Amino acid sequence: MGRWEPDARGRLARAALTLYAEQGFDRTTVAEIAEAAGLTESTFFRNFADKREVLFYGAEGAAELLASSIAASTGTPMDAVSAALEAWTAIMQEDIDRVRQRDAVIAANPELQERNLTKHAELAAAMAAALRDRGTLDTIARLTAETGIVVFTAAYARWIEEPGKEDLPSRVRAAMVELRGALAQ
Amino acid sequence: MGRWEPDARGRLARAALTLYAEQGFDRTTVAEIAEAAGLTESTFFRNFADKREVLFYGAEGAAELLASSIAASTGTPMDAVSAALEAWTAIMQEDIDRVRQRDAVIAANPELQERNLTKHAELAAAMAAALRDRGTLDTIARLTAETGIVVFTAAYARWIEEPGKEDLPSRVRAAMVELRGALAQ
Repeated sequence: MGRWEPDARGRLARAALTLYAEQGFDRTTVAEIAEAAGLTESTFFRNFADKREVLFYGAEGAAELLASSIAASTGTPMDAVSAALEAWTAIMQEDIDRVRQRDAVIAANPELQERNLTKHAELAAAMAAALRDRGTLDTIARLTAETGIVVFTAAYARWIEEPGKEDLPSRVRAAMVELRGALAQ
Repeated sequence: MGRWEPDARGRLARAALTLYAEQGFDRTTVAEIAEAAGLTESTFFRNFADKREVLFYGAEGAAELLASSIAASTGTPMDAVSAALEAWTAIMQEDIDRVRQRDAVIAANPELQERNLTKHAELAAAMAAALRDRGTLDTIARLTAETGIVVFTAAYARWIEEPGKEDLPSRVRAAMVELRGALAQ
């Protein structure tokens, strides 16, 4: 193991995103990312499995945030999921420029889009587990958690398309109201 | 182009699934699939881009079925999506042994799971397009179509876990009722 590098993960993630945005994901090498971050290639591989994973640097933290928010909530399963999504997207909202830059990199690459879908499935699984820990039945836990990701994805797409209008947490709330309306009989 | 091969796609898909189930996805070559189907490797590549795509042979037909079912429906967007999913899963139910064999192959391979998520996203996009053609607002069309895929996925997972109990269309109906209940305020 090399010496301890302060915030190596964050430095690598920021350097990678900048390079991917400037010169494209396919044309960027791990060696370039490490150099731009002032670190070595072996430090990169101690922190990330590959070039794709570095783009999903925040996913683990997001899963923990969503799960702890659900654990703290006392509402219905869907209310708990909604509140968790609002807490998460409020944090995304603070870093809008990087989120949009990252979105453009992912949108340009089918492999990254596939990885992104997998990360969303992992977030849904983390929320479902948190709901089960609260005592929610497995079937309801899975349905509400995955529906939460659908609501997030719809809100996020509109936010990316029309960035100036409403902020992301408000769009999540609006999409949830729309979906409740569409499912009401 | 080679000579016309009757049902080449279907023969290749069946041969591939049998080999993947017997000896594993990673250990199966395109040459082996072609040989088992009594066809050439070049016929394989005229029909499928790669070893993964052959497992998703039915996805195009599924997208067309879902879209045409939604086009024929006169109910609310969510009712149209539910009816389309029941029509589709009734067909899957007829071929339960192959569906389960295919599911086991996908479950054993993270790459195939990623491709499966992408195919589900494509089915949701096809349903959303069909809803827009009926005059549904884009935002509602996307939300209901993607929620439909969530309902399908939940029902499918239970059906795979407990095959003997209810059939797949009934499970889709039950999951939709559960989700409506979870979202009612």
